[in-house]
This record gives sequence, C-alpha cells and structure tokens, in this order.
Amino acid sequence: MDVKQMAVEKHREWGGKIEITPRCRVTNRGELAVAYTPGVAQPCLEIEKDPALSFTLTRRGNLVAVISDGTAVLGLGDIGPEAAMPVMEGKAVLFKEFAGVDAVPLCLDSKDVDELCRTIEMLAPSFGGINLEDIAAPRCFEIERRLKEKLSIPVFHDDQHGTAIVVSAALINALKLAGKRFEEVTVVVNGAGAAGIAIAKHLLSFGAGDVILCDKEGIVYDGHPANNPAQQEMAAVTNKKGMKGTLADALKGADIFVGVSRPGLLTPEMVSAMAEKSIVFAMANPTPEIMPDEAKAGGAFIVGTGRSDFPNQVNNVLAFPGIFKGALEAGATDITEGMKRAASLAIAGVLEDDELSADCVLPGPFDGRVARAVAEAVAEAARAEGVVRR
Amino acid sequence: MDVKQMAVEKHREWGGKIEITPRCRVTNRGELAVAYTPGVAQPCLEIEKDPALSFTLTRRGNLVAVISDGTAVLGLGDIGPEAAMPVMEGKAVLFKEFAGVDAVPLCLDSKDVDELCRTIEMLAPSFGGINLEDIAAPRCFEIERRLKEKLSIPVFHDDQHGTAIVVSAALINALKLAGKRFEEVTVVVNGAGAAGIAIAKHLLSFGAGDVILCDKEGIVYDGHPANNPAQQEMAAVTNKKGMKGTLADALKGADIFVGVSRPGLLTPEMVSAMAEKSIVFAMANPTPEIMPDEAKAGGAFIVGTGRSDFPNQVNNVLAFPGIFKGALEAGATDITEGMKRAASLAIAGVLEDDELSADCVLPGPFDGRVARAVAEAVAEAARAEGVVRR
Repeated sequence: MDVKQMAVEKHREWGGKIEITPRCRVTNRGELAVAYTPGVAQPCLEIEKDPALSFTLTRRGNLVAVISDGTAVLGLGDIGPEAAMPVMEGKAVLFKEFAGVDAVPLCLDSKDVDELCRTIEMLAPSFGGINLEDIAAPRCFEIERRLKEKLSIPVFHDDQHGTAIVVSAALINALKLAGKRFEEVTVVVNGAGAAGIAIAKHLLSFGAGDVILCDKEGIVYDGHPANNPAQQEMAAVTNKKGMKGTLADALKGADIFVGVSRPGLLTPEMVSAMAEKSIVFAMANPTPEIMPDEAKAGGAFIVGTGRSDFPNQVNNVLAFPGIFKGALEAGATDITEGMKRAASLAIAGVLEDDELSADCVLPGPFDGRVARAVAEAVAEAARAEGVVRR
Repeated sequence: MDVKQMAVEKHREWGGKIEITPRCRVTNRGELAVAYTPGVAQPCLEIEKDPALSFTLTRRGNLVAVISDGTAVLGLGDIGPEAAMPVMEGKAVLFKEFAGVDAVPLCLDSKDVDELCRTIEMLAPSFGGINLEDIAAPRCFEIERRLKEKLSIPVFHDDQHGTAIVVSAALINALKLAGKRFEEVTVVVNGAGAAGIAIAKHLLSFGAGDVILCDKEGIVYDGHPANNPAQQEMAAVTNKKGMKGTLADALKGADIFVGVSRPGLLTPEMVSAMAEKSIVFAMANPTPEIMPDEAKAGGAFIVGTGRSDFPNQVNNVLAFPGIFKGALEAGATDITEGMKRAASLAIAGVLEDDELSADCVLPGPFDGRVARAVAEAVAEAARAEGVVRR
C-alpha cells in the first residue's frame, strides 16, 4: 500500500490525531466540588484580580493555538478550513510529542485579513501563544504584523520563520565546514514569497554579506516592475550591487543557493558557476530545485533538501516545538529576531564537531536533544531581551 | 482547608485541567510520513472533495467547542475571558469523563453580538458542535438564534437548555409520584432570564397546563411595562389567565414552583398556599430560594435544589455530556425541541419505579447509566426527525 492510501486508512482508524485528556479527577462529589462548582469560583476570582494568573491556574501557560485559514496548505493551495485540519492536527501532535506543548488546531472559515485578525485577537485570552500556519502570502505578512503589534503573547508564522530558522542552522554548520563566515558570503534565495523573504531577513540578521532574492521575473531589484510591496521592501536591504537578470546571473560566483521555489529550476551548470565550496539547499516539495546527485555533479560541496530520504533535511519540526516551549517557559510576550537567531544557533549547536560532515549539517528530526536545546536558548534570549511578562 | 482555598491550590498544582493527547505515534520517519507530510496530503484532498469526511478523518466527529464570552460566569457575573477559563476547562473535563466527548474551551474577548457570532461561524468548520456557556442575557438568545440558523452543526446554550432539560426530567418523575399529569398542572417559574425562559418553553413543549413566569417586577403579563423583548414574547404563551401581581399571588393554588432567582424569595407561607402535593425546585446558587426543610414545613411534597448536599440535585451534568454525545453519534445538524424532550425523558427514565421516592426524582450526577441513556435517546430523536447529515 502506498503512503497516500495508508494515510487515508490510518486517519479513518484514528478518527482524529488528537484528543482532550483531563488532568484532574471528577469521580465523586468532593472532586467535582474542587474541579468544578462551587470550588472553581475561587481560581476564577483570582484570575479576575490578576489576569497573569491565567498562565498558571489554567492550561494557558503551556497552550498554543495552531491557526490556519486553509489557503496555502502544504503544496495543495487553497483547500479550505475543513480540508486543512489533518495538517493542523498533525502539527498539534508534533508540538506535544517533540516538546510537550499542548496545541489546539483551529481552521478559520474566512480569507479576510480584518476578520482573521479580529478573531485571533478575541481568541488570544485562551492561549499562551499563536502559531500561524499555511496562510497564503501576502495576507500572512499583514496578519502576523498586526497580531504581533496587538497581542502580548508570542505570534509566529511557522511557514516563514520555521523554515528560515532551520535553513540558517544548516548554513551555520555548512559554513563552518566550508571555512567561510556569514559576512563574506553571497546567498541567492530563489522564491521571493513568504518563506523566501523570511529566510533572506533571517540570514541578514546573521550578518550575511549579501542576499539576492530571485523570483519568476528574475532577480528582485529596487523598482522591478513585478515587485509586490513585500519584495520592494526587501529590495532596499538585499542585492547590494543592484544586479538585474536571471537566477543564473545571480548565481555566478555566489556561495549559497537556497531554493523555496519549484522543481528543476536549478541546473548543474548553474551550480558549476558558483564559488568554491558552494552550498545548495533545494527545498521545493516534493521534488527539489535540483536532485542532490546532480548538484554534487555540478560541484556543490554541501547539499540539502526538504526530504527525509536525502541527507541534510530541512524540517521545521526542528524549530517550532522548542521555540514555543521556550517562549512559554519564559513567559515571553513576543518572538523576536534575537529569539529566532538563538533557535538557529541552538539547532546548529546540537551537533558536536565530530558529528559534522557534508552529509550531516543538521540534526535529524528525531534527535531528542534538539527541542530542549532550542527551548533553553529561546527562553534565555527572551529573558535577556526582557520580552517576558512582568 | 476549605474548598475555595483547596480549589486554588489544586488548580495551581494541575496547571490546567485538560491537555492535548496524540492518538497516533510519530516516533520514526515512517510514522511521520503517514501522520504528517507527505501522507497527510491525501486525507486533506479527500476532505476537500467531500467536507463531510472531516467528521471521520479528523477529530471533528467527537469534538465540541465550549465557548464563553465570560460575561455571566457561575454567580460571579462579568469576570472576563481569562477568568472564565477555569469553568470552561472544568466543563471540558466533564464532557470527556461523563460521555467521552472531546471539548475545547474557548473564551472570547468581545461582548459584541455580531463579532461573537461571526467568530463562532468562522470556528465552526473545526468542530462537530458548539456548546455556548455563561453568556449574559439577552445577548445569549440572539447569539444562539443566529448561530442555529447559520450553522449546520448543533448549537446549544447550556445555561438555558441544560437546566430546562434536567428540571423537566425531575418534574416528570415528581408528577408521577404526585399522581398528576403535565396537562393539569400550573408551574410558576421565578426568574425570567435565560434559564427561566428556557424552562418555561421546555415545560410548555411537554404540555404543561399553564406556566406563569415571575421576575423582580412580579408576574410577567402581556404588556407589562418592565418586559424585555424575550419576556414580552413569553407573555403570549404563558400566564393564560392574564394574572397580574406578585410571586405570592401566582403561587396560590399552583402545583409547581421552579426558582432560578435569588436566595430566600420563597417563604413557607407561599408554599402553604400552593395546591396539594406541591413540588418545589429552588435552584438559586449557592443558597436556594427556600431551604428544603422550610419548604417541607410549608407542606411541599417534593423539594429539589441545585446543591449536592440536599436531595434531588438539578445538575446540568446529567444532560450536556449525553446530549452532545448523542448528537455527534447521529451526525445531527441541530439540537431540536424533540431532542431536548428525549433527553429529559431519558434522564427521568434512568430511575426504575422502585428507585423513585420524594427524595429521589433524579439520578445522581455519578450515575453511570445517565449519559449513555441520554445519548441514545437524543441520537434516536435526531434520526427520527431527520436532522442528520445526508
């Protein structure tokens, strides 16, 4: 049976991948009086006096909402809120299994930015954090921006920042092996959507020498007629030499290719034109921009993809469980650039020097060290920056 | 330690009364590929083709949202969404423990009817049912009315209908013991708010001879200057003789008193003026309209309250878990008057004739027979009325 057919049968058998489990007993009148009426009135009144107690007297301190509008689900596109739910339930499973974080999947039936923002604001008192998921660009930027401004709990669009954090972790280790520093490298990011822009920003915050964004219309430059507002904004901080042209032009002499685009867009010839010890992360799903053996044939020193059947898999599961665990543990009110950098460094740092190799620049998704290391680093960064409650 | 202090300490120890638990394993690449990417894409696509499959391929078929705006919590009033959460978590525990229903507590930060309705509509694709909770009147009527109209999943405001269903169940058995039929009795309901009006409607649907609603301004009659719209609407179907006056006037010769009002409003003298074999359900919390011994001294045949330390406790937990379980099992698209009547009859019917007595007209809250009996009766009623999916 192939994985598709098996997945449908298993989903039917499971009847949902998560359930709600009580953490207290209510088997007799005494227990009921403490967990429910009349006793429950007292924790209610304590929280009314001091709403911050909601993080300790209810599940809020360990509870994340995984929220999608179902418009950009996996590679499937706009499949609607009901159809998005299997992915969001899966995400909730990963939150719990990898970091012990409780996550409630909520798929919202609207595509209106105002409505989505207002609804998530109204839901916020019930949660300790908001993980936005599979929301189409450019709506996702505006929704995240507004919510980060309004809410005093962490808001994180995983499709943007999760990928950015993990690919940056991979590059930290890859550059170590290549003997290069961020300051001296040029990174070409192909695909200037939500993920590509987040990756570019995150690499710049690590001090990357230059980042060149490319999209369907070629290199993104200041004033390109095809720029959307987010791309035009990025033009100001990327492509320092003001290059124009194609992906092939951008790659000449570049050190790193990062693809969040489409299958087959990168050729061995383009890889050959890159600098010595070139690094290729081709993350188009399910078929990468270039297959690893072709990239190697073109001369690439280190190659990664989004797939589990090749070395160096960029998998968001390395990031989001630990990031929210750390943010919740610290009582963080935001997820900052500093916290995201800390997450990348922690993921990269899980691998000891003697574990590092061209085929191993990232820990595997089931490496038990990762979530704890990320959580501790993120919590420490939050405390150091003072973005914590009280 | 008193129950209040104990409740705060226990709530801190629990750190939330519910948590999210996975129903599938993700401990290796194979399992991850089935529960998450790439396998999960297939159940997503199946649901996109047929959204009804969301009830079997995700948890939706057993999942209820417990939604409050925190404006009428227990006897505490408008304490806000954060402070309402301990009650909603408690409700979620009861849903699971009593009927195996998974319930997600959501406290919404808004008091605007339009916003609340729109938000709940947007949330509906993620749930199999909506349990509204502790929303202030008259807003609760409008919210429930609109949502029932818009949504194709069951919507149920427990504070109204839960109480109505359980007190009606008690009256079914009480009338049996008193040797009276619904058609020949007059019921006085004191407290013409959300619960009182729901009780009046439910008793009328059982064929009660007459129902007289009373509120702070005395008997509710057609054209009473203090009537709110809901009360004015009720005036058309209650108080058939068009009585005016006080609660004491209404009670002269009445068969049943049902109180959802304030402590101490019923005196032994008023009870004495009622008909033979009078029935008193004094459910003000925590102190009833009349203490059971006083009601008995006034001549009451059967007395019940909302309290667990007196006989005949009217406890919503007898109703809501089984009602939603039955509705979900049947794939119900609504909760109708017929389904509510079936629930009352099922609760009453749990007690065999030889178990019935003046001090036992309702099963206890931990009677394991109740939820299953209610679920089966409600599911059967839903199927009989045809209010089920497809």
